[in-house]
Parts: sequence; structure tokens; C-alpha cells
Amino acid sequence: MDYRIEKDTMGEVKVPAEKYWAAQTQRSVMNFPIGPSGSMPLEIVQAFGYLKKAAAYANEELEVLPAEKRDLIAKACDEIIEGKLNDQFPLVVWQTGSGTQSNMNCNEVVANRSHVINGGKLGEGERPIHPNDDVNKSQSSNDTFPTAMHIAAYKMLIEKTIPGVEKLRDTLQKKSEEMIEVVKIGRTHLMDATPLTLGQEFSGYAAQLTHGLRALKSTLEHLSELALGGTAVGTGLNTPKGYDVTVAKFIAQFTGLPFKTAPNKFESLAAHDAIVESHGALKQIAVSLMKIANDIRLLASGPRSGIGEILIPENEPGSSIMPGKVNPTQAEAMTMVCTQVMGNDTTISVAGSNGHFELNVFKPVMIYNFLQSAELIGDACVAFNDNCAAGIKPNHDRIKMHLDNSLMLVTALNTHIGYYKAAEIAKKAHKEGTTLKDAALELGYLTAEEFDNWVDPSKMTGSLD
Amino acid sequence: MDYRIEKDTMGEVKVPAEKYWAAQTQRSVMNFPIGPSGSMPLEIVQAFGYLKKAAAYANEELEVLPAEKRDLIAKACDEIIEGKLNDQFPLVVWQTGSGTQSNMNCNEVVANRSHVINGGKLGEGERPIHPNDDVNKSQSSNDTFPTAMHIAAYKMLIEKTIPGVEKLRDTLQKKSEEMIEVVKIGRTHLMDATPLTLGQEFSGYAAQLTHGLRALKSTLEHLSELALGGTAVGTGLNTPKGYDVTVAKFIAQFTGLPFKTAPNKFESLAAHDAIVESHGALKQIAVSLMKIANDIRLLASGPRSGIGEILIPENEPGSSIMPGKVNPTQAEAMTMVCTQVMGNDTTISVAGSNGHFELNVFKPVMIYNFLQSAELIGDACVAFNDNCAAGIKPNHDRIKMHLDNSLMLVTALNTHIGYYKAAEIAKKAHKEGTTLKDAALELGYLTAEEFDNWVDPSKMTGSLD
Amino acid sequence: MDYRIEKDTMGEVKVPAEKYWAAQTQRSVMNFPIGPSGSMPLEIVQAFGYLKKAAAYANEELEVLPAEKRDLIAKACDEIIEGKLNDQFPLVVWQTGSGTQSNMNCNEVVANRSHVINGGKLGEGERPIHPNDDVNKSQSSNDTFPTAMHIAAYKMLIEKTIPGVEKLRDTLQKKSEEMIEVVKIGRTHLMDATPLTLGQEFSGYAAQLTHGLRALKSTLEHLSELALGGTAVGTGLNTPKGYDVTVAKFIAQFTGLPFKTAPNKFESLAAHDAIVESHGALKQIAVSLMKIANDIRLLASGPRSGIGEILIPENEPGSSIMPGKVNPTQAEAMTMVCTQVMGNDTTISVAGSNGHFELNVFKPVMIYNFLQSAELIGDACVAFNDNCAAGIKPNHDRIKMHLDNSLMLVTALNTHIGYYKAAEIAKKAHKEGTTLKDAALELGYLTAEEFDNWVDPSKMTGSLD
Amino acid sequence: MDYRIEKDTMGEVKVPAEKYWAAQTQRSVMNFPIGPSGSMPLEIVQAFGYLKKAAAYANEELEVLPAEKRDLIAKACDEIIEGKLNDQFPLVVWQTGSGTQSNMNCNEVVANRSHVINGGKLGEGERPIHPNDDVNKSQSSNDTFPTAMHIAAYKMLIEKTIPGVEKLRDTLQKKSEEMIEVVKIGRTHLMDATPLTLGQEFSGYAAQLTHGLRALKSTLEHLSELALGGTAVGTGLNTPKGYDVTVAKFIAQFTGLPFKTAPNKFESLAAHDAIVESHGALKQIAVSLMKIANDIRLLASGPRSGIGEILIPENEPGSSIMPGKVNPTQAEAMTMVCTQVMGNDTTISVAGSNGHFELNVFKPVMIYNFLQSAELIGDACVAFNDNCAAGIKPNHDRIKMHLDNSLMLVTALNTHIGYYKAAEIAKKAHKEGTTLKDAALELGYLTAEEFDNWVDPSKMTGSLD
Repeated sequence: MDYRIEKDTMGEVKVPAEKYWAAQTQRSVMNFPIGPSGSMPLEIVQAFGYLKKAAAYANEELEVLPAEKRDLIAKACDEIIEGKLNDQFPLVVWQTGSGTQSNMNCNEVVANRSHVINGGKLGEGERPIHPNDDVNKSQSSNDTFPTAMHIAAYKMLIEKTIPGVEKLRDTLQKKSEEMIEVVKIGRTHLMDATPLTLGQEFSGYAAQLTHGLRALKSTLEHLSELALGGTAVGTGLNTPKGYDVTVAKFIAQFTGLPFKTAPNKFESLAAHDAIVESHGALKQIAVSLMKIANDIRLLASGPRSGIGEILIPENEPGSSIMPGKVNPTQAEAMTMVCTQVMGNDTTISVAGSNGHFELNVFKPVMIYNFLQSAELIGDACVAFNDNCAAGIKPNHDRIKMHLDNSLMLVTALNTHIGYYKAAEIAKKAHKEGTTLKDAALELGYLTAEEFDNWVDPSKMTGSLD
Repeated sequence: MDYRIEKDTMGEVKVPAEKYWAAQTQRSVMNFPIGPSGSMPLEIVQAFGYLKKAAAYANEELEVLPAEKRDLIAKACDEIIEGKLNDQFPLVVWQTGSGTQSNMNCNEVVANRSHVINGGKLGEGERPIHPNDDVNKSQSSNDTFPTAMHIAAYKMLIEKTIPGVEKLRDTLQKKSEEMIEVVKIGRTHLMDATPLTLGQEFSGYAAQLTHGLRALKSTLEHLSELALGGTAVGTGLNTPKGYDVTVAKFIAQFTGLPFKTAPNKFESLAAHDAIVESHGALKQIAVSLMKIANDIRLLASGPRSGIGEILIPENEPGSSIMPGKVNPTQAEAMTMVCTQVMGNDTTISVAGSNGHFELNVFKPVMIYNFLQSAELIGDACVAFNDNCAAGIKPNHDRIKMHLDNSLMLVTALNTHIGYYKAAEIAKKAHKEGTTLKDAALELGYLTAEEFDNWVDPSKMTGSLD
Repeated sequence: MDYRIEKDTMGEVKVPAEKYWAAQTQRSVMNFPIGPSGSMPLEIVQAFGYLKKAAAYANEELEVLPAEKRDLIAKACDEIIEGKLNDQFPLVVWQTGSGTQSNMNCNEVVANRSHVINGGKLGEGERPIHPNDDVNKSQSSNDTFPTAMHIAAYKMLIEKTIPGVEKLRDTLQKKSEEMIEVVKIGRTHLMDATPLTLGQEFSGYAAQLTHGLRALKSTLEHLSELALGGTAVGTGLNTPKGYDVTVAKFIAQFTGLPFKTAPNKFESLAAHDAIVESHGALKQIAVSLMKIANDIRLLASGPRSGIGEILIPENEPGSSIMPGKVNPTQAEAMTMVCTQVMGNDTTISVAGSNGHFELNVFKPVMIYNFLQSAELIGDACVAFNDNCAAGIKPNHDRIKMHLDNSLMLVTALNTHIGYYKAAEIAKKAHKEGTTLKDAALELGYLTAEEFDNWVDPSKMTGSLD
Repeated sequence: MDYRIEKDTMGEVKVPAEKYWAAQTQRSVMNFPIGPSGSMPLEIVQAFGYLKKAAAYANEELEVLPAEKRDLIAKACDEIIEGKLNDQFPLVVWQTGSGTQSNMNCNEVVANRSHVINGGKLGEGERPIHPNDDVNKSQSSNDTFPTAMHIAAYKMLIEKTIPGVEKLRDTLQKKSEEMIEVVKIGRTHLMDATPLTLGQEFSGYAAQLTHGLRALKSTLEHLSELALGGTAVGTGLNTPKGYDVTVAKFIAQFTGLPFKTAPNKFESLAAHDAIVESHGALKQIAVSLMKIANDIRLLASGPRSGIGEILIPENEPGSSIMPGKVNPTQAEAMTMVCTQVMGNDTTISVAGSNGHFELNVFKPVMIYNFLQSAELIGDACVAFNDNCAAGIKPNHDRIKMHLDNSLMLVTALNTHIGYYKAAEIAKKAHKEGTTLKDAALELGYLTAEEFDNWVDPSKMTGSLD
């Protein structure tokens, strides 16, 4: 491979000739061969594009950077934002815990790319833009990386997670309304219980997601606070006056999202509780989705030897050995995602709790897990919605069969003949394999007419009127 | 031991003669000898006292229960609320997952205690109050236990957790203000960095807890929703019209807390996302407290061979073998609590995700863990506050020694001579064990006057003005 | 309350007059009002009894303690071991992270109790035994507490956990053998699949627990290593030569368990990987038990609208509102225990990872969680065994109904007519609601005789012979 | 894009013209657009290569597959094993929970590739090999995927994880030996304690990893058990007699690893406790590595305002804003990996506990997390070893300074003058800022000669001889 020589404060390093990155990125490539290369999420790379551009604009506005430099930096940043330079970011999550090397990766790429945009030749001549003194001006890794974390996290939630969950919630709500009259047996402890409607059952699922969405959205406020302007330890050393507010303004403008400067920069560097908080809400949603997907596959189980009260779409052959089998595969993908998110929450909590003094150095692992959870939840909700939830239909025959057989309709008699006599009826029917009505009449606790009047499943699905 | 005979729908059971509980409680004692007896939290017992009383009032108001029965039930409930009947609740967490047996324990105790209050003799004569038909009227375990969960959780947060965290936050804030002028070396990656003040450092801790408190309080809304009125499966079967709203009104009145009926009862029985959500905020606070307590013990480490920049109160001899040793014991208690809360969060998430159909049957384990976390955080914050945080003092001598020695003051030169030359100075001083000033002057990059003017730690603790 | 004055190196403290504990215990009571009092497990108190007695014997054998002191100490320790002094141990888990105060609690109680055993009066006269110089001789909290952890953990595993799991495993194995001929439909993805026998299904459960027991037992070796003899930092300072081996010998003798001195004491104080390792195996068993208990409640679900292929014992009325309901309550207790153990594993891992230098200061929280898990698993297995597993019976009618209806018997045709044609048959039967045989004959892919010969569920439960 | 038409039992699907995969793979691509494409680990793809080849060999040996088909299949499998067909496996982790579609992906690729190897043209003519009836012969997804899990997991542990951990352990052991005479201050509770040697400190780290390696290796036995031969539900339906043993023999032969057939196939399909067990050991190692890496960065902290007792290699510029800064970046990468592994353990436990009946359908997420942990630990140990541990050197000046200043050397006096007088000396020296010797002499408890003789740090690093 062809190389050129790049230098940093520690000396010379060979860098692949055609790559824009320079010495520090290359050192990281060599020092951290841990897991697949390029594992640092591209969403972080893009977020760096926004923030470096915003920093250049703020520096220019506050008169510490010439407009020409600003514009060169901004052009290179725009290419990063558009994803044109994705192959210039080879670093892994498992690097410096402050993400310093990814910050330098961006500084180096912007500097070298600016040189080329400016008509220069990579590796030759004086570069118009210096990675530390210009691209990184008024910044430190310690405030840029957490800023990139918040930008990437916020964008992912807004663009993918929330729309995905909302889409599924809306479908479940619509299904609830469609099936609001379908009376079926309830189940508690997995055992037959008093009836409700299929629509009521689905309304619980929709309510869970509505609560989860509210919880998630209430974490956006904390995520909207940006560390940028704190520089090395939170004091804002080497930034011009007003810089933190100005740079947040530009980031908000470029991303179209309501970012603002964090009121306390010490917290923003030393802890990532905003990530912990927001991922806690993602985990809550995962807990809800696990329940919902589990229920749906249990309701669809069978088709002949399970519960089988709903029909779900058949999307693919279910088995490589059992011909004709259809499986609840979307529920399986969904529940696997949920377990992933639950584990990611452990990672994020442990990482978040281990900061020391002015800096938490688990930044890359925190955002890597956050973005994975946020993306997977969003994607899985859409897949589950489109390929499963939207096509759910009641299986009326089985619903009726289960309802007609159930012994727990006896509960309707409590208010008429008392809990103990009702229990006697249910136990007799269960033991003798007969119907409730037969058992009730035989015991002589009520007339056939009373029975028919009182034990009416459709009346049992609401409170007494 | 003396016994009396009690009956339920399954037959006769021997019950200790002097105990108010009856057959179903006793069956649970016999069937679930798992862990220490009486592990069901007393906060849940008390919450049942509130809700049974409220149910009696609502039933009376809605004309399905006579006023005399209401008053008898209410008297027994008041004794439960006051803790007078604590020894009547022997059940464990590891019972039926719906808490049915703890609901019946309460029903049985109220029925038998009412009998005695009414002048009867335990185990003799006709009881005026029936455990199922009266005490449990318009209720099911499936809606009472989750209601008790919310009452107990909400009360614990309001009475212990939030005041405890606020007390510590206020002290940290006060310390921050007291020490806002104490300039010290910053540390990132545990390595010497640019300076900040001790007060700035503590402001980050206060900010973390402020964020945590906000997050926790925003979960109270979901916790204020009560399941009561949903009965067996959420439909409200066997409740009089308007019951759910009425009973919530009485619970709010008796507890003095803003409870209301849940808009969707299916969600309230089948899932406990409110507990998952609120414990997520407790876990966030644990993550913050872990960072804070860790920092404080590191800052206090030494006294001679550590960092030693703050002094913490000496509360007890630190070692059984090393004479004169003093340890950061409050930080240790606190961080142990934090690990407990992180684990409890896993338990609650897994339990919360495993509901089936109309009922989540992990209710007791969820509230057991929730209450433990909420109590421990509240207590630990108060102990840490009173016995550690309130007595923290700067150790000025060591702070000055560290500040004077630090090489990272060189960062102030970046904006004057550039990052690369500044690095050269720092490296030279590090290698030769000299001061920055000596190295700077020797390299000839600036004058002694410039150095003294630019490298001024106290100027370095804020942004450039 | 009556008090007496006790002193330590920090000064005087008022102690309840009738209690054996002294100044340092009392300071801990005052400084750590966190959670319920006395939460330090009694198993740890008992383990301290063993180790203090063993230390006295070793010190005497190595000639640094007179035989009379040894005997006095041993008498007091025997009372601790027998549980006679349980009310002398008021401390909580949430104290010093080294357990120093529980070590001193024991030292103080032994010293004062020895004084009384020796004919002295509590709080009066010269005590014959000094808590630090005699009871704690050749010891530090730093090596005694981890030793107590291993003693308590090992005993609990041997006495409760392993016998409990083995009991349940043996019952599942016996059930497997009893039901080895009961052919039933299999289920994969919760969907009908090819048949197996109920005994085969249960053999998988037994195999899981056998693997779990093997994994758990293989952790005993690490747990058998004792830290005692390492004193403050692992070097063995202030111990006589040969002390570590001698004291381990006496602990092994007094407990009847194969304890030995740890080959590396630095590891034993600074980390508790043996606890992490052994709890990992407990967590594995919890994962297995969760699967098993879940399956059993699903198999027993119904009785009419679920799967209902097995019958489980009816132990208590299942519902306070639904008369005659019976629930899988033992499975619920068991699965709640499993979620607790999974959360405890997180706590133990986080705590175990946070040691610093020569000491891990999360000792109390680690052993508290370990003992809870070990006890709950043991107890829950016995309760589940006695009240559920031992009484499981096949429900032959429903098993036959499900088997006869299943479409997945078609799999037996793969090797005769190929996967694609077999799929065609299954899909046709499913769509038209007919039997496989009807569909097969109608499609003309085989004769009725061939069908009957090839599609024989009982032949399908083993490999082709 | 160019397409061709492929068919399965559900109908026709358009597949990219140049790809070897067919209908079922393509359906999965369309139905599961969740996260980055191709996230199913390539190690699983390779393991499928081994097992499909072994199945062909076993089928031929047992006379249910012609030798020509075996050889065609084997050729295609060899290409998969060699990684030549990696771009033919586009599926994601978040698919069917049995991994059916990845099994079919392999079946389809082998079938189509065989056709081309045989001289055919993709999408044209009769294929000599059928994906279900030949490649998948005597198999089901339900036994192939768990077999692939064990092959991939075992290989990763043997080839990467264990060698990586051993390499680091050996270096720590070597460092321990090199530095066994370097006496330094100990630290407990982060506070100065009695001395030990730097080599002793490092011996504890080596001992931790030795224990971890032993624990990990003891899980290999369970991992060596292969599910193959169980087919759909564990009964071995549609396999020739002796197939399970034979196919395991071929897998062992082709991989060179000691695989064998699982004694209980029901366990192997329905649960993945072997993965849970083995990952538990990985988590234990992560817990150990977290402690070790934390200690090393604390020991290296400073260089001037921290502990600074060891020097670690300087691998890259540490800060984008602070010139000359060097950070413990390898420790940061390592501890981030540790938090990832701890979270992955939660995922694997939750997933492992959620199997139903004859099949656990969280297979892909379990192996994805397992392989990530195993790879990251192996890689991170090597990087940490090469770039940090191997270059660690004592910083003698600071070690001596800390040792000379410590007050805890007073502990050596306990056995001469008693704990209380020793404490008095230490407290006096601490309060007055003097040396222990000065305080001791002033208090008159011993002579200068006695002091010098008794308080000798180098004598304090072993037990009394």
C-alpha cells in the first residue's frame, strides 16, 4: 500500500496515501485493533460534521477565525454530513474513552480535505487549515464528543425511534377500535378468567406505548443540552466570550433541532446522565414491547394446538424441516431487540456510573449502545407493524369456542349468590366436565332464566351500569 | 401452639388461635416457605389499609355496602394504617405473582378484626363482615395489589427518597458556593488537566442530582394512576357505576396524595410500566450518586499518599488492625446502595417484561425491589449528607501543591503560541522534571513576563473575557 | 433506655446497657441508619463465630495466645454459632464496605461476652479479653470479612441450594421416566410442531438442572479458598508463621467443609471473583428454572381455553373475585425468584468490578445478594417440588386431542415424498380445515395405507431405525 | 438492479441476479429491515459451512445421500469456510428467533453455488442439489443453528479469547516477578495502608485472570455438546440411525475441536444454558479486567497531581486541547469493553430464560452478544498487553516518597505496644504533620532504636518469621 508521512506532537506516522486522515487517526488504528474496524457509529461522524461547522461559524462570528477558514471548514463538514467521507473514519468504539481520537479523526479529515478543496494536493504543500488550531478551535475532545453524542442521540430518536413506536402504537390503537366488540375470554395467571373484548386487550398495548412515548419525549430536554463551550474541564478555557451560546445556536440552526447550551458544563463532561436517562425510557419501551410481542405470539399460537385467537400474516415458510409451518417471526425479531436493549441499559448504567473527576471516559461505549437501541427499536417497530400488527385479524371460531367453554363466567354470579356458592358451581362443572349452567341448575342456586340473564359475556366486559 | 379452624372454598385449615388471619393466609404460609417470613413490605400492608378503607367508603357512597359495614371495615383499616396489626401479615414476597394471598391476608384480617372490634370473639359466632363479599367488594387481587404498589411507591418517593436526595443536593450546592473561589487542578482521564475551582467541581454534582430529581418527579404522574376499579381483567366487572373514580377520590383523600383512576385499566393490570419507569429514574440517580461518592472518596484519598484535596469527617476508627486509620465509609455505604439499585433495575425490567395477557404476575418482586431502592437511596443520601458531605472542607495545602506543579497550565498558551509549541514546552518540563516556566524560557517561545501574565490558574477557570 | 459508656480510639460512646456490643458497633448504628436495622445476614454473623474461634485456636497453637484466652473466646464463639447472640448484631449491610464494623461487632461481643462467661459483670472491671488485641489477633477486617463471606456462601450452597435444586431435578427426572410413553404434540415458536413424548420434554428440564448443578459445583473450589492470614493488605503482616494454613485447618475442622488457605491473598482481599463466579452459576440455574417454570405453567394453562396438557396440584383458591379459579402459583413464586437472582447478578458484577488497589469495598452488598439468591433458589426449588412438580400428571384427553389435530405430522412424509409436496398437503389441510390424510389423498401423493404407515406419531418421537 | 425469479413453498420472489441466495433469504431481507444489513456474525456463516459439510458426509456414510451430492455440497461449503462467499449472507440478527432464515440462506447458497460449481448457470436449468431435501437433509434449523452457535463460540474462545487473556495474564505475572522487591505503600478504602511490593500487587491481578481462565475453560465441556441430530424438536425425526454421533464426528474432524453429540437434544434446542454458562465466565473475566485496568490507570495517574507510582507507555497525544497530555487510553478501551460484556450478560440471561417448550427463539441475539464479548475481550487483552501492560515500569521516586510519608507503618507496632498506643502515635503524627518516629518518641512508648528495628517497610511485606 502507498503511504505518506504525517506528523503530530509525538513524531512521524505512515498513513495510507489516499486517505484524508493523519497521524493521530493512524495511531489509533494501530493501537486499538479491537473488534471490527470502523465500529464508531456513522451517526457520530455526521454529528461531528455539524458541530465542527457550527464551531467554525461561531468562531468567525466571535472574531477568532477568518471567514475564509470558516468557509473552507464548512465545505468539508458538509461533505461529512452528506456521508461522502464515510470511508475516512476507520476508528473503533474501543479507543480513548473521551473519543479524543474520533475528534482528531474529524479534525484531520477536515484539515486535509479543506486543503484539497482549496486546490492543494494531499500530503503536499502548506495546509490552509490546521487540525488543532483551526478545526478544533475553541474546542476540546471533552466537550465535542459529548456534544456529538447528544446530536446523534437526539436525531436518532426524532427521526427513527419515535416515529417507529408511534406508527406501531397507532396501528395497535386502530386494531383496538376495530375489534372493540369482539368478546373473548380473559386470561390471568395464564388461566381462563372473566371475559373482555379483543379491542380492550389491544387498548392496553396502545396505552403502554403511549406512556412509553411520553416518558421518552420527556428525556429530550436533557438531551438538548450541549456541552460545547466547556472545553477541557468545563470551565470554557480558550473560548471567546459568548461562544457556548453562539455555537449551540448554529448547531440548532444546522440540524433544525432545539439544541441549547448546557447550563452546567461540568456535569456535561463528567457525567452522561442525559444518555442514562433517555436510554432508561428506551428500556421502558423495550419492556412494553416484550409484553406486547409475547402476547401476540401467544394469541396466535397453534394454529390447532395452541390458543389461536388471532391470525397473523404469513410472511415466509416457517421451517426448513416442517412443511407448511408458519411462525410469529416478527414477534421473535422484536423480542430479541428487547433483550438487546435491556442489556444495553446495563452497559450504559455501569459506564455512566464510572466517571472520574472532570471526565467520564466511557463516552464511545455509551453512545454506541444508545444508538443501537434507538435504531433497533425504531426499525423493529416498523417491521413488526408492517409485517405483523397491521395484518392481525380475530379468529372468531376459536374465540367463540373458548368463550363458550369458560368456567370463569361464573364470576358474574358473585353479586347475586355470593362468592362461595359461585365457587361451588365452578368446581362442580370443572370436576364433572359439564357446563356452568348445568352445574348451577343441578345445585339449585338459581333458575335457568336467571342464569341466562346474569351470565352474559358481552355484559361482563364493562362495569355494572 | 393453639389453633382454631378456618375455612375457605377448598376446605378447613388450622390457624394459630390468636392470629386474625384465616384459611388462605395460612395456606400461603404453608405453601411458600421461601426466604425469611414476612418479607412482603409493610408499606404494602399499609397501602392495603388505605385502599380497603377507600373501597368501603366508595361502596357505601355507591350504595352497595351498608354504612355500618363501612365503618367497621374502616376501623380495622385504620389500625392497619397505624401499624398496630403488623404482626398479622406473615406472608412473603415469593407467593402468588398477583399478590392474591396478601390481598386475602388483608381481607381476612379486616374481617376477623372487625368481628372483634364489633364485640365478637375470634373464631366464634357469625362474623359481621365477610372477607370476600364485603372487604373485597368491588375488587380483585388483580386491581388491589397494583393499587397498593402505586400507593406504597408514591408515598416512599415523596416521604423519603425525594427529601433525602434534595437534602444532599442542597448541601452539595451550598458547598459549591462556599468553595467557588478555591482554584485547583482539574483531572481528566485521571490525569492532570487544566484548573477549575472546587466549587465548580461540586456544582456538577449538584447539577446531576437536580437533573435526577426532575427525572424522578416526572414519573410521579404515571404512578398516580390507580388500577382499582378494573377488578379481574380490567373491565370493571362487579363494580358499581362510577366506582373507579370514587374509590380513587377516597384514596387521594386518605393519603393526601394526588391519586386518580387510571384511564386504561387493562394496562394497569397487565403491565407495571409505571414502576419500570419510576425505577429507571431511581437507577439514574444511583448512577449519579455512584459518580459523586466515588469522586469524593478519591478527592479525600490519602491522607499522605493519595490526592487528599478535601477533608471528610472522621466518624469511626477505620481499621481493626491499622491504628489511626480513617476511611470514606459513607461513600462506601452509598456506592453499595448504588450497586443494589442497579441490580434491582434489572430485576424490575425483567419482571416487568414477563407479563402475560391480562395480568403481570411479578407484582410482589417488582414492588419489593422498588421500595428497597427508594428507601435505600433516601436513607443513604441523608446519612451521607449528615456524616460526610456537610462536613467536607478543602485541604488548601495539598490543593496548592498540586496546582503549582501541574504541567497542564500550559494549555493557556495555545491561543498565544499554538498547540504544537505549547506541547513542546510541556514535554520538556515533564522529561526534565522542571517547571513549565523554566522550560518555556529555555525554549525561548515567550518572555517571563508573558508567561506570568498568560499562565494564571485563576484566570483559567472561566472563558476568555 | 439504660446506657453504659464504652470507649474506642476516638473516644466515649453510650451503648445500651444490656447489649454486649461496644463503641464501634454503636458508632455504626448511629452513622448508618440506612434501611431496616440488622440487615447484615445472620449467616455472616455465624461465619464470624467460626472464624474467630478458629483464629483463637491457631493463635494458641502458634503460641501467640494463651490457652485460657483461646478457651474463653471459643465459648463465646460457640454461642454465636448456635445463634444465641443473634440480637447482639444490629448492623446493616450499608456500612463500611470492608465490613470492618461487623468484624468489630463480633470482636466486641466476644470480648464482653467472654468477660461475663468468665464471671465478670458487663461494663464493670477489667475484661480478660481485648477486642482488637485478642479476638482480632492476627486478623484484619480485610481478611476476616472475605473469609466469613466464603464460609457463609459455601455453607448455604451445600446445605440449602444444592439439595433444593437436586430434589427438584430428581423429581423432574422421575416424571420424565413416568411419562416417557405419553406421545404429545411438540411446539416450536409456540406453534404446533412434530410430536415428542411428555417424558422427553421433561428430560430436557432435568438435563438443564444437571448442567446447572455441575456448573455450580465447579465454583466451590474457588469459594473454598480463604483470605484469612492476609491481614490488612494481603501480606500477612502481624501474623505468626504458618498462621494462614493453620487457621484454615481449624475452620475446615469446625465447619466440616473443605476450606483451605488461598494461594494468593492479594486476590482474596482486592477482588471477590469467587463470589462473582459462583453467583454466575446461580444465575445460570435461575435462567433454567425460569424456562422450566414458564413451560409448566403454559402446559397447565386453561383449564379449558389454554393448552391444558398437564394437571398441577390445586393448593389454594386462586382468585379473590373469580370463584373456583386455580393458578400456577408455585411457578409464579419460582419465576419471581429467578428475576431476583438475575438482578442480584448485576449487583454482584458491578460491585465486584469496582475494587480499588488492595481492597474491594463492596463486600457486604456482594454477600447479601449472594446469600439471598442462594437461599431463595434452594427454598423455591423445594416449595415448587413439593407443591407442584411432584404432583404433575398428564391430561391425556387434551394431549390426544392436540396430537390428533396437528398438521405437523406431515413432516414424516418429507423422506417419502419430499418437503415441497408435504408442504402442499399441510397448507391444503390448514386452509380447508380438514385432516392431513384427507388433504393428502385428495392431492393423490400417496395411498391411505402409506399415510397410516408413515404418519404414526409414536414412531416420530425417535430417530429413524 | 437485475433480478431473477426464485420460488419457495409460498411462491415467487425476485432475487438479485448475481446472488446465490434464493427465495427465503430474499423474503428475510425484505421482512426484517432492522439495523445494519449483514449483522449476523460471519463466524456463524463459517460454522454453517462446517456443519453442512459434516451433514453431507454423515448422510453419505449412512447411505441417505449419494457421494456425488456430498462432494458438490462439500465444495461449496469449503468456499464458505474460507470466507469466499461472505457477500452471500445479507441477513440480520433480528430475524426469526430460530435462525431459520440463516439456515435457509446457507442451504440456498450451497444449492445454487453447487449448481455453478457443477457447470450450471445461476437461475437456469435443473439444480443438482436441493436446498431442503439435500443440503438440509437430516437437519432442521432448530438443530443446525444451535450447532453453529456452539461451533462459532468454541472456536472464538479457543482462537481469540483464551490466548488473549493468557497473554495478558503472563505479562502481569512477569511484571509481578520483575517488581517483587519494589516495596510501596498499600491502599485500602483508597486510603494509605500497610506496605506491600508492587510485584505482590500485580500477583493479585495475575491470580484473578488465572481463576477466570480456569472458570472459562470449565465451560468448554458444555459448549462441546452439539444439538445436531435432534432435528425439529429434539427427537431426531427424519435422521438415519447413528446420525447424531456420526455428524458430530465429522464436525470434530473438520474443525479440529473436540465436539461430540449432546446427550440430551431436548435441552440443546429448548435452552442455551451452555451459552449462558460460558458467557458467565466471560463476564467474570470482564469484572476482573475492570478492576485491573482501573488500578493501573489509578497507579499511573498524575503525572504530578495523582498517584503516579507506575509509568505506562505513551502511545498517542492525549488531548486535542491540552498540549503534552498523555492518557491511559488502553485502560479506557479495556474498561469500555468490560461494561459491554456486563451488559451483554444481561441480554444473554434474559434471552436464555425466555425459551418456550421445544425451542428457544432468541438464538441469534444470544450468539451475537456472545461472539462480541468473546472477540472484544480477546482483542482488548492483546491491545492492552502490547500497548500498556508490557511497558509498565515502576516510578521509584514517587513510590519512595509515598512510602516514607505513610502513617500506616505504625501497624507494625501493634504486636509490640498494642493497637491503642499505636493509634495514639498515628493520630498525633497526622494531627501535627510530623513523622511517626517523632510522634512515637515524644509519646515515649518506645526508643528510637526499637522504632527503627520494628518499623521497617520491607519486613512488613510478609508474615512474621
